[in-house]
Amino acid sequence: MASTAGPNSTDGREGRPTLTVVGATGAVGAVLRDLLSTRLDVYGEIRLVASPRSAGRTLTVRGEPSEVVPLGPEVFDGADIAIFAVPPPVAAEWAPVAAARGTVVVDASPVFRTSPGVPLVVPEVNPERVRDRPRGIIASPGCPTLSMIVAIGALHHRYGLRELVVSSYQAASGAGRSGIETLYAQMEKVGGDRALGNRAGDVRGAVGEFGPFPAPLAMNVVPWTGSLGADGWTSDELGIRDETRKVLRLPALKVAATCVRVPVTKAHSLSVHAVFGDRVEQREAQAILAGSPGVVLCDNPESHEFPTPADVVGTDPTWAGRVRCSLDDPKALELFLCGDSLRKGAALNAAQIAELIATEL
Amino acid sequence: MASTAGPNSTDGREGRPTLTVVGATGAVGAVLRDLLSTRLDVYGEIRLVASPRSAGRTLTVRGEPSEVVPLGPEVFDGADIAIFAVPPPVAAEWAPVAAARGTVVVDASPVFRTSPGVPLVVPEVNPERVRDRPRGIIASPGCPTLSMIVAIGALHHRYGLRELVVSSYQAASGAGRSGIETLYAQMEKVGGDRALGNRAGDVRGAVGEFGPFPAPLAMNVVPWTGSLGADGWTSDELGIRDETRKVLRLPALKVAATCVRVPVTKAHSLSVHAVFGDRVEQREAQAILAGSPGVVLCDNPESHEFPTPADVVGTDPTWAGRVRCSLDDPKALELFLCGDSLRKGAALNAAQIAELIATEL
Repeated sequence: MASTAGPNSTDGREGRPTLTVVGATGAVGAVLRDLLSTRLDVYGEIRLVASPRSAGRTLTVRGEPSEVVPLGPEVFDGADIAIFAVPPPVAAEWAPVAAARGTVVVDASPVFRTSPGVPLVVPEVNPERVRDRPRGIIASPGCPTLSMIVAIGALHHRYGLRELVVSSYQAASGAGRSGIETLYAQMEKVGGDRALGNRAGDVRGAVGEFGPFPAPLAMNVVPWTGSLGADGWTSDELGIRDETRKVLRLPALKVAATCVRVPVTKAHSLSVHAVFGDRVEQREAQAILAGSPGVVLCDNPESHEFPTPADVVGTDPTWAGRVRCSLDDPKALELFLCGDSLRKGAALNAAQIAELIATEL
Repeated sequence: MASTAGPNSTDGREGRPTLTVVGATGAVGAVLRDLLSTRLDVYGEIRLVASPRSAGRTLTVRGEPSEVVPLGPEVFDGADIAIFAVPPPVAAEWAPVAAARGTVVVDASPVFRTSPGVPLVVPEVNPERVRDRPRGIIASPGCPTLSMIVAIGALHHRYGLRELVVSSYQAASGAGRSGIETLYAQMEKVGGDRALGNRAGDVRGAVGEFGPFPAPLAMNVVPWTGSLGADGWTSDELGIRDETRKVLRLPALKVAATCVRVPVTKAHSLSVHAVFGDRVEQREAQAILAGSPGVVLCDNPESHEFPTPADVVGTDPTWAGRVRCSLDDPKALELFLCGDSLRKGAALNAAQIAELIATEL
């Protein structure tokens, strides 16, 4: 019986592909284990892998304890698929090692997203691209892009996307476990203090450590996520542009993004101004979103129904609301999108890509 | 000696105009009293007025105690100027009463902002408009518009503004004292709780009262400020469009705004995508902002220098950073702006308008 088989057991799972999860102990890895335990069970053996520092622990996947093994070439022996949820330097070093051993790599890091010969895949938008992987590596977009691309892709299919102006409201989780922990620690320090927030710098002096953020996050917003790119743009802002162009196969798409961190734990939000080739109609756009797999329309402001990060965290879909036609441009649409940055924004998209491959094998 | 004269004394202030402050006990009124006590002293008598419920208290202005008197027609007797910092219904009823008695009204409410015959004034941008006031009323824009209009006006002067796409990060203070108090109370409830922010709805269940907001604000962002307007737009979003068009005298300006509340006490932020008639150059745009009265350029991301609400709260200027030229449109510029919503966003702009009139009298 499959239900009594351990995570490494092939009992009842004969002939199914072996999966290696690299980075099983991180924030994304924890969600991956949860997804592997709750989605359709398509794998034979599942191996949990982490850095030597985090290895040796026993974690649960598919309801059974599994020892976390340290990253080394042998973790890919006989592995059909590997999901990488690790920092960029680790992905850059080890994804080619896995691919050279015949393992199909699904990488959630930024390293290969814009690389030629590496497809960038969002299963609801361009699932067919998984088959064209000359380097044996498939990349998953960054969490800001993943927070919007399913909804925007559906609208593009109908109206023909020409331009995006995006402002983000990104959660602490985009900076991993230390981001989430930093926000909780800062909230604990400032939570009950009514003297704060009145004078310049008083929050800066009260929150304690900034952790991975360049400024206080509690009681604040920080117009900076990622690293510094060219001409004052951040890596996240450039990533939204490059990744959207690649996923939608629109190399000339105009994209201007501003990425801002907000004191929210795990769900990202995006305010999107989208300009299309065709005229847009509000009710039709709402119907397209409501009918798209992976998108939930939540758009009834008369009843205070619009997506907020606190209401969508922990769920899989992209939530869409505040859908409005521009008053000054019949081809422009405004909308507000929310999604869990660790689920569709990272682990879920990688798990969906891996399932596409597992099904094909 | 002026320094020993009370707030109602004309000792040393003979011949100066009398000012009535209607709404002296509210969040904006408190900042107004602070500004009247610290800016150049241009007034003779200053009368503090509030609703009958809040009247009778003794508050300080210009370093001296002053009794708050209840609102009635007589508070405008002999008053040259009245600043209204009151809810819309009170402004709608009483501003015409004051104007009929010859008092020049400076109204911070939305009631008259788009009314014909009422100038909408931002002293750094269109000070000359105060003179053309056939109804005796001058309106001050809303706090989202005021958070950007000085910076955008300076850039418009050089490049010729054609289009704005704005996403806001608005503080609790936009909803007045109850907004600020609600945020503090919610922060107190959730501040130390690391279990929150992981599952949909857990923050909703933990924050207590929502106060003036349609959803939890602590650990969340809420894509809704103001009241419901036509076609799903909010009053704040329509206000940014109408007010910017009126102040800049650009009746055909394309404006698309999305207004979002964030868990910050008092300073608003705006992400702005501005399209101009002329080509934009990054360093020149930065120099224009740095050289504009009322604007401070804070734009050195290599050193983590960009404006954040926690760092600008309590200050007067508009802070500008993250200035970037679009990668896809040589006439488009991105920037991030922050300002105190109660100072330049409300009380300071009204005080500046009143000073223009006081100086002219």
